[in-house]
Parts: sequence; C-alpha cells; structure tokens
Amino acid sequence: MTPPPPVSDAADPIEALIAQMARLPGLGPRSARRLVLHLIRKRSQTMTPLARALAQVAETARACRICGNVSMAETCPVCADPRRATGELCVVEDVSDLWAMERGGAYRGRYHVLGGTLSALDAIGPEELRLPDLAERVRAEGITEVILALNPTVDGQTTAHYIAELLEPTGVRLSALAQGVPLGGELDYLDDGTIMAALRARKPL
Amino acid sequence: MTPPPPVSDAADPIEALIAQMARLPGLGPRSARRLVLHLIRKRSQTMTPLARALAQVAETARACRICGNVSMAETCPVCADPRRATGELCVVEDVSDLWAMERGGAYRGRYHVLGGTLSALDAIGPEELRLPDLAERVRAEGITEVILALNPTVDGQTTAHYIAELLEPTGVRLSALAQGVPLGGELDYLDDGTIMAALRARKPL
Repeated sequence: MTPPPPVSDAADPIEALIAQMARLPGLGPRSARRLVLHLIRKRSQTMTPLARALAQVAETARACRICGNVSMAETCPVCADPRRATGELCVVEDVSDLWAMERGGAYRGRYHVLGGTLSALDAIGPEELRLPDLAERVRAEGITEVILALNPTVDGQTTAHYIAELLEPTGVRLSALAQGVPLGGELDYLDDGTIMAALRARKPL
Repeated sequence: MTPPPPVSDAADPIEALIAQMARLPGLGPRSARRLVLHLIRKRSQTMTPLARALAQVAETARACRICGNVSMAETCPVCADPRRATGELCVVEDVSDLWAMERGGAYRGRYHVLGGTLSALDAIGPEELRLPDLAERVRAEGITEVILALNPTVDGQTTAHYIAELLEPTGVRLSALAQGVPLGGELDYLDDGTIMAALRARKPL
C-alpha cells in the first residue's frame, strides 16, 4: 500500500498562500500559518481589503521620476509639494531611509534616493545608483545644500566621499548627519566607536 | 504659515497598505514597512501573485462542513480522503492544532475542530463550539476511538471532561495525547509540572 499523500500539498491554494507568505522577509512558516488563519477568520474585514490594497499598489506603485521614492504617481508627494522646494537635498541610500527621515519630521526639503551604496564587492558602480542624476539635479534645481544621510558603514562612507568629489565642481554646500550619542541611549550600552565619535564632536555647553 | 501635512497620510494607498499590514498578528509598523517595500520591489514576482492568492482564498475558503478545518471545498482534503475513514476521530481546539497534528504525520484518521474551548469567563458554552456535532458524528460515522488532542490548559481540560461525559452514552473509546518530556527537551529547562507528569506516567524499559 502506498502511503497517502500529505494533506499539505502546494496544489491547495491555502497551502500555496502560506508558502508565499513564509518567503516574505521577517516571516517564517509558523508566522505565515498564523497569519493566514487569522486572515481567513477575518475574511471580509481584513483579507479581502488586503488583497485589494496589494493589487492596487502592485499595479500603480513606481519610483518617483525625480527622487526615486516609491509613489503612486509619477511624482511623489514630497517632490510634488511646492513648499518643500527649499533648495536642500537630502541624499539617502534607500526608500526606507527616506521614510525614517520623514518620521523624524524635522526635514522640510526634498530627497534623492540612491538605491544603494557603491560596493566593490557587489560590483555596484555609480551607474547602478542614481548618482549621475544627483549631479544633474544639483545643477538644474538650484540646490544650495546637499545633506548626506548615508549609513555609517564602510560602503556608506565610500559613497559619501564619491559624492563629495562628484559635487565639488558645482560648489554646493555639503553636510552630513551628526554622529553621537542617540537620544535615550545609555553610555554603558553604546559601542566604543560611537562614544569616540561623540567625544570628538563634543560641543561647548 | 500652517505646517505642511505629513507625507504619511492614510489617503496614500501605500501608507494605507502599510497600516493594514501593521495590524496583522505578529507584524508591527516597522516590519509592515519593510514588507511593503520588499513587495513593491518584487512587484511582478511577489506582490501581484500574493494579491491574487489572497483574493482567491478570501473568496473560496470556508469551514469544512464535516470537521471544521479550513478548506477550499465544502469538504476538506482530510474528510474527502476515503483512506482516512479509520474510525478514529481526533478532537482539536483549533485549525492550527489540526495543522500541527498533520505536520506530525503520525495520525491517519479524521478530525473534529471544536473552534475553541469551553470557558466560563468568556461565556463560551457547548453551543458556541462544535460539541453537539461531535456527539452526532460519533453516532453516525461508526467512530471507535476519540482521541482528545486538547491543550493542557484549565479550559482545555474542562472541555475534555465535558466531552468524556457527553460521549459516555455512546460507549466510544476515549484517549488523550500522552504528557511527558518533549523530544529534544532538556530536563533542566522543563517546568516542574511537566517533569511531575512525566514521572507519574513513567514506563518500564
């Protein structure tokens, strides 16, 4: 007698949905199963609207043609807002960094999303990023200051140096986010590099 | 001058999608943002198929009319499989428990999903669960053994006692999952209750 086939075959749409969910970042088989059961239970309130929202965003979302932010229109809400034409341009690696800056709520200018960092290891050169566009924008949009909000990694800092050289001919003012002790951070839990950076950049009271 | 509105307003479909995702169990705002960005980046390979799979399951999934498992058909694959009409019925609290039993792969009979446990606190009585159906099935399907796979909680054990009384007139054989040391479990990390239960149920070598 051949053993009966397992119930959880991928031909079953529920199993297929769980498998799809389980491949998403931050989810695994267990959380995917829990999610799918939750969704099936709250079908009309949760699952159907979620399916619709996903389909709508999948169909319409694109990169903003100016800054590279994700957007439902050709131009993202930040670039489309005339009050944000402040002459400042904040360079970030990724859309998630742009969102983090927006949550901070302190920055009122526009952005430029590189789409990554230069990386010799991963063979990512300036042409793979939106670096040529950056020089072009600085010239064309009357930018007065470029704020580098790149991550304090080797690749991030390499990219910052490249941008500094790239923009030197334009004479634009360049700055970078301050490094130091994070708000609410306890010295005892900070890495040595951060403490050294904060000490070097100490400010008179 | 009025401050400009935040970019992250819920009118934006991307923001609305993130908000919907963030309300799902196991996800929060941060993981929802990460997920949505990932999905937008892998739009055609991931996001569109996921939206379709969700819509399909949302439209079709239902409770199996026999056992209460979630299913794309009126009868779930387990109930529809004639090889599983073994005369054994495994009673579980929830569909997730049924799935866990199926992953174990050792059980070859059919299931009965209660949909919860009796609970005085939450005012859940036998009528809220599939308990009347259970007695009916035992009588109608020629069941020889009912295996209780309920969780070792107060409510789970209350429900087990109720089922024992409910099924007494039918004369069906009743059993429950063994309690003891889990495979791969280290004694040092086990709770005292489990160790006591394992000692009481010790078996001759």
